[in-house]
Amino acid sequence: MHPLRFVVAAALGFLVTSARAEIVTKTVEYKQGDTVLEGFLAYDTAGPARKPGVLVVHDWKGIGPGPKRRAEQLAKEGYVAFAADIYGKGVRPADAKEASATAGPYFKDRSLARARVRAAFDELARQPNVDPARIAAIGYCFGGMVVLELARSGAGVVGVVSFHGIIDSPTPADAKNIKGKVLVLHGADDPYVPDTQVKAFEDEMRAARVDWQLVKYSGAVHAFAVAEAGNDPSKGAAYNATADRRSWKAMEDFFAEIFAKG
Amino acid sequence: MHPLRFVVAAALGFLVTSARAEIVTKTVEYKQGDTVLEGFLAYDTAGPARKPGVLVVHDWKGIGPGPKRRAEQLAKEGYVAFAADIYGKGVRPADAKEASATAGPYFKDRSLARARVRAAFDELARQPNVDPARIAAIGYCFGGMVVLELARSGAGVVGVVSFHGIIDSPTPADAKNIKGKVLVLHGADDPYVPDTQVKAFEDEMRAARVDWQLVKYSGAVHAFAVAEAGNDPSKGAAYNATADRRSWKAMEDFFAEIFAKG
Repeated sequence: MHPLRFVVAAALGFLVTSARAEIVTKTVEYKQGDTVLEGFLAYDTAGPARKPGVLVVHDWKGIGPGPKRRAEQLAKEGYVAFAADIYGKGVRPADAKEASATAGPYFKDRSLARARVRAAFDELARQPNVDPARIAAIGYCFGGMVVLELARSGAGVVGVVSFHGIIDSPTPADAKNIKGKVLVLHGADDPYVPDTQVKAFEDEMRAARVDWQLVKYSGAVHAFAVAEAGNDPSKGAAYNATADRRSWKAMEDFFAEIFAKG
Repeated sequence: MHPLRFVVAAALGFLVTSARAEIVTKTVEYKQGDTVLEGFLAYDTAGPARKPGVLVVHDWKGIGPGPKRRAEQLAKEGYVAFAADIYGKGVRPADAKEASATAGPYFKDRSLARARVRAAFDELARQPNVDPARIAAIGYCFGGMVVLELARSGAGVVGVVSFHGIIDSPTPADAKNIKGKVLVLHGADDPYVPDTQVKAFEDEMRAARVDWQLVKYSGAVHAFAVAEAGNDPSKGAAYNATADRRSWKAMEDFFAEIFAKG
């Protein structure tokens, strides 16, 4: 490209950008107790001064490209999105073995999972462009468990969405603390979340009179919304573009309902 | 109102109506064998020359105000909608006892249910403003059973939606004939469709590798989308405005997917 054309194109690009909406992303350090956590914030500079907030909780691999892409997509859709870091700054499992070892303690100690996600919730709630009365949380696999624990802790989330999440609870009576609505998006062939676990979840929600919905997607196994999960369902975890698209739409409909004003 | 104001208002109303889209509704007689059936057709005069078609199958009370309202709503949303008559012209059960007696034979003889709904499908497909390659069917309670039988018969429906339908099958192997996609919208507390029936349905669909989805709505019992069903869930059948709204949205999303061109 001729240098002058480049300058003109850059100038035009600048004009277009400054005149239109712009997605801002940034790394945000925050703490839970003495543990330093490193999340990822995304929002659009356009739109209302205070927007609904959406917390995005990663799968067992920790915060990586997937949750960050989701946060950016949510920012484009008008939300202030915050991809949480449950594990701590720099704790980024390299493979499934490390991921399993890292996630394990949070499955065993749900109070730790709750404390970590609560710190992310508070960080999002204190953002100046967030309406703290309108915050939801979504989570993938491990993160599905985490956002459900956030709800069970009694946090003021207006809704939580689990994508192929682990939905069991060692303390089902805690469901009585749930303040928001619950949407579970489940792969009908997910070997990690068997029918018995689904049944127990339904009984837990029913007993606590929670407003819950559960969607089963045929042909979908664990991790159906994780682009990095490969395409071999026989492994028990695999990406499924159809279930990914449908579940995202279900989440959008859910958000339209829970974030509606008045 | 002053007479002159009335005339002006009427004239303006006429101008607005004739300049814009108009919903046409009409009663349509058709036959299955020697049985005369009386359905209800609704469409918008605006829009493309050939639209997707949606068959609406009534609950055990037969074709009445509910299915007709649904057909008109679907017409407003751009579909040619046909509320089917499964029972026959003039067969309109007056109460639950008569409805049960009238519906019974169709539950027992699924081939009769298939023949009756097939006649409605053919009637819709031959409408000049319908794209016969893009027809779906929705059904309520009894009608959920009927539209699933339509799919199991191998009819060329691109999708079927069951609202609080009876989803059992005496011939589960027939699921292999299903050509379209299947969406089941289920009340999580529906006493007429217990977990065992849901499980059998899932196994049937899974074995036949059907593209299916199932949504459970908390707090919803049988007939949750039937405005005439009252508001006492303890009776096992009751209207639920939240589940009605959510399930209609789920159907709209499903239609957007199955009717998308290319």
